[in-house]
Parts: sequence; structure tokens; C-alpha cells
Amino acid sequence: MEGGAGRGLECQKIMDGKVNENGNVLDKTIIPSCCLKSRASDTELDAKCHATVVSGWFSEPGSRSGEAHSLEVKNILYKEKSEYQEILVFECSTYGKVLVLDGIVQLTEKDECAYQEMITHLPLCGGDGGVLREISRHSSVELIDICEIDKMVIDVSNKFFPELSIGFEDPRVQLHIGDAVEFLRHAPEGKYDAIIVDSSDPVGPAQELVERSFFEMIARALRPGGVLCNMAESMWLHTHLIHDMISICRETFKGSVHYAWTSVPTYPSGVIGFLICSTEGPPVDFIHPINPIENIEGALKHQRELRFYSSEMHAAAFALPSFLKREVPLLRDSPTPAK
Amino acid sequence: MEGGAGRGLECQKIMDGKVNENGNVLDKTIIPSCCLKSRASDTELDAKCHATVVSGWFSEPGSRSGEAHSLEVKNILYKEKSEYQEILVFECSTYGKVLVLDGIVQLTEKDECAYQEMITHLPLCGGDGGVLREISRHSSVELIDICEIDKMVIDVSNKFFPELSIGFEDPRVQLHIGDAVEFLRHAPEGKYDAIIVDSSDPVGPAQELVERSFFEMIARALRPGGVLCNMAESMWLHTHLIHDMISICRETFKGSVHYAWTSVPTYPSGVIGFLICSTEGPPVDFIHPINPIENIEGALKHQRELRFYSSEMHAAAFALPSFLKREVPLLRDSPTPAK
Repeated sequence: MEGGAGRGLECQKIMDGKVNENGNVLDKTIIPSCCLKSRASDTELDAKCHATVVSGWFSEPGSRSGEAHSLEVKNILYKEKSEYQEILVFECSTYGKVLVLDGIVQLTEKDECAYQEMITHLPLCGGDGGVLREISRHSSVELIDICEIDKMVIDVSNKFFPELSIGFEDPRVQLHIGDAVEFLRHAPEGKYDAIIVDSSDPVGPAQELVERSFFEMIARALRPGGVLCNMAESMWLHTHLIHDMISICRETFKGSVHYAWTSVPTYPSGVIGFLICSTEGPPVDFIHPINPIENIEGALKHQRELRFYSSEMHAAAFALPSFLKREVPLLRDSPTPAK
Repeated sequence: MEGGAGRGLECQKIMDGKVNENGNVLDKTIIPSCCLKSRASDTELDAKCHATVVSGWFSEPGSRSGEAHSLEVKNILYKEKSEYQEILVFECSTYGKVLVLDGIVQLTEKDECAYQEMITHLPLCGGDGGVLREISRHSSVELIDICEIDKMVIDVSNKFFPELSIGFEDPRVQLHIGDAVEFLRHAPEGKYDAIIVDSSDPVGPAQELVERSFFEMIARALRPGGVLCNMAESMWLHTHLIHDMISICRETFKGSVHYAWTSVPTYPSGVIGFLICSTEGPPVDFIHPINPIENIEGALKHQRELRFYSSEMHAAAFALPSFLKREVPLLRDSPTPAK
């Protein structure tokens, strides 16, 4: 399941005193600028979130974070306001076609592989590997529910990113246009083996996707030992937010809670993290793929060949820099890959 | 040993028909834009390389690559032209103090740890680990030669980056101001256990640092089984250049040739790679640190504590995305970490 439409989670919702009930007291005096600035009013944020193409260059709004990434625009292919957001598609020389929602780069043709492959295969190949094994044997898979609030995003994907939207053609896919929170609220308890949340900036429709109640709904919708993979921002820019999310998830998911990251050049600071959790049940070893994708017949070349993910990339994604473990003490006792 | 002063290696020198004698014929029709554009005249490049601070924002020259990274400037601390290059130091909110040479970000206080720690400890902890073990036992270390062409860079480092320049205080350090190529040419054969090349854009003084003859000089100056760690650009942007460097090094270094990478937010595409080679001698297993830094007394906290590097980050750095192995066939038979 994919959550809202955007990316670029901010801290405000999570930071408003909802965490740390497990005894991990936040030092309120050390709030990084990324978080402080996200407390600006919604109106202010909205104004800054609009895509800017000036003199042939697109720039992400950097005023909130003190940095900006810019891409040279060869050609604007699409620019339209949907019910929920401003959608922009342009072509740039370095990364090919780029999809931008409300001024934030969502994906580019060149580096989408890193994000899409990692957020999917980290939960599906980790653990007991049963989920992916089941998916690869087509007859045994019952359903893939996808929830997306903004139909225009899917239409744009179909038109400009056919290599991506090919996923919708899978006969197991059930597409739900609507609010992910509402969708999950009505999902039967224990229905899913895995839930993937490609969540958004909590300003606007995706606001609820970073709240404790949302994680509780996810845990409820998962079977015992089921897994969640949730987009979890940049270790360079948002350690405070990562700490808070892990704190919530440690309380909500009674199985394992891990953090992994990967390189995505067109996201802020060039990395994106993933929070990978499992509900109560048999312990899940996320780090070492028990059912390596390389051993699954046809998996590497299904639809388009894998460009980024492999079992070695899987294990390596869980290696965390020293500073992250220091700034997010809850990660200190994480098991390490390799050895 | 550090090479020239800059970063941001270009392809032109290496691409002019000097490689592929080992049978790996380059498809000359597939030259990525990064390489094509570096063939612009030196004058043109010089003009584009100058640091630009406009309306309170510093931007790296992106016109060559179709993308740009910008940092909000809180305060310009230093701006001077040395004999070799333009030196700029400013303070930004996200990454602290920033050192810029000829318009290219060299380091920031926040993320220098990733680059400096990885380029040093990957070669020193990998292999037989003997080098680091010797360094950690002070009495047995004889000499650390550092060669830097631009004294003003060292003066600026002393003034604005004392946490970095503290390294110069080590009594084993011999600082040589001059051309690294000349320095190596006169180095006794087999003198060094390890050589670290923090190389530069080959436009200007560092031009020779990407030529085959330079790698041959390095191999000559290393003892049998000695190791080289060389900055080797971005896997997202410069696969063609990486292919060429590996091709040269496979011929020059008769031991092992490996590629590793790490996240550095303020470098183009957010990653930087390292080429790690060993000369003929006992085989060197770079991937699995035999002498883990965690086991070396005092190593983690020496001068300033490690922020990025650890044995788990070491092994993970050798995990390569599928696209890189596809685009650089010489990397396909690389051994993989983990398992």
C-alpha cells in the first residue's frame, strides 16, 4: 500500500509531545533547524512548496532547510493542479524525466530504482522471505491493495512514466483512490502480510500519516509477524524525526524495529531512510534476506530488470554511521549487518 | 598522502584513448554527458568554476552536469585567491562551515566525517590491518608524508577547521608543500605501506593525478601488498570514468582492485566513490576488516571521535548497486560484502 502522494515528511506532528512515553526523554533544547522551521504556518509552507522553474532551472524550495538542489530543465512536459496538489513533469539532462508534487521531487527516471526497489524489497525479502516467495508464485497471491489519494498522479504516471506504472497492470492489484487513513481504518484486522508507506509531507492530505494513530492502524491491519516499511527521511537532516518515529514504532510494533537507508541523489542530502517494523509474532531477521531475490526465478528481470537492489545492497542498507547511532540512541542496540 | 587540493575529477584525460588495452573495449558512442561536457576548453571551465554567492546562496557550478546544489550562506568567513585557486570559506545553517576551492565544495563541518573517515580507514583497516595496527602503536610508526600543492589551503584549514587540521600536529607527520606528482617521482621504490589520493579536478595543477603514469608512480612507491585509496567520483554520474579508472588500475596494480562508495550530501549526487587497490603481494581482503577499528585501543576517540566509519560501514561500502555492475562490467566479478 502506498500512502499519500508526496514525500518530504516534516517533524511538527510527531514532535508535539506525542512520543517518548517509553522513557526516552527528548532534549527539547536540541531541536534541529529542520524541525523548528517546519513549525511555520501552513500558509507559509504552501507558498514555499510551489515548484519554481527560473531561467531553465528547477529548484526545490530550500528556504526551509538552508540548502537546495537544482535541475536544469530541458523541457516541461506537464503542469497541472489536481484537487490535492500541483503536479509538474519535466525532462532534465542528468536524471531524465522528473515528477514533482507541490515543488518536491518525487522521482526521476534515473534514480527511482533506488527508492522504489529498496522500499519494496527491504520488507519483502527480509524476514522469513515468505511474502516475496508467495508473490513470485503467482497463483498463491491473493491481492495487492494500493491506496492513492490523487488520481491525477496515477494518470501522469501512466502517461509519462510507463516503466513505473506497468505495476498497475498486474492482475493482483486492486487500486483504491482515496485517503489511506480511511482505507486502513476499515481494513480487516490482520489482513496484510506487508504494508509499504510511501508517505508525504504532513502538510495537507498526508498529515495523518505521521501520527501515532496511523502506525497503530497499520499494526492492526498486519498479521502477526507482518511487516511495515515506512519512508523515514534523511539521517543527515532529520535525526530528531527519526528518533521520534522509532520511538513510536517501538511501542506500536512488538516485533522488530530497524532503520535502513539508501542513496537517492535527487532527494534532500542525497539519501532516504526506511523504517522497517514487524508486529508481534515469530522474530523477523530483516537484515539477512533468507529468501534472496537472486534465487527467485524471474524476479530479477520481471517487468524491468532490477537496477539497484540486490541481496548485498539489502544487508548493506542496515549499516548505520556512528553519528546516527549517537544521535538516535534507540538505534544503538540494533543488530549490525555483515560480519 | 593527499594529492592536489581540489575535488571533482573530470574524464577528459583518462578518456583520450589511454585505457582498455586489457580487452575491455569502450563503446565510444555511449559517452555520458558528464564526460562530453568536460571536454570544454579550460578557459570555459575556469569561468564556470568560480564560486558564486548570489542573494545569500552559494551554488556549485551546475552548468556542466545539468544539476546544482545550493547552500544558504549565513556568513562569508574568507575569500582569497592563492597561487593556484580561489579559496572560499563560509558558514551555512545546514552543514556548518564550508570550504570551497575554485567553486567546488571540498568539505563541510557536518559531512566531512564521511569522506575523511572512509578514504582513510577503508585502506588502513582493510587488508591485513597491519598498517593501522602499526599506526596505533605510536613507537613503530616512522612517517606520514603529506603532500599538498597549495599552502594557503592548509593555512585556511588551521584557521577555520581546527578539528581537521589537528592532524598536522601529529609528530609523525612530514608536510611537503609541492606537486604530488613530483613528490612521488622522487619517492624511493616500495617506501609506503599505504597511499591516499584525495585528488582534484584535472583542470589546473591536478591534471596529472588522473593519468596512467601517476598510478604507475603510486604502484612503484608502494611496498608489495601496499594499498592505494583514490577518490573515484560518483557512481550515479560518472560510471564511464569509474570504468576507465578501474581499467587502468587493473593493469597497474597486480593485487586487488575494488570500488567502494559512501554518502556525502554536499558532493554532486550525494555520493563519493573510492578506488582501493593493492600491489602484487599477499592477497588483500579489503572488504572484511581483519583488524577492526573497534578493537584498537583509543582509535575511536583519538583526537575527535569517529562520526561515520565503523567496521559495519566499512563492509557495507563495498556493496554495489546492480546498475553500477552492469555499466562497469569490470566490477561484476568483485567479491561482495556480507553473507
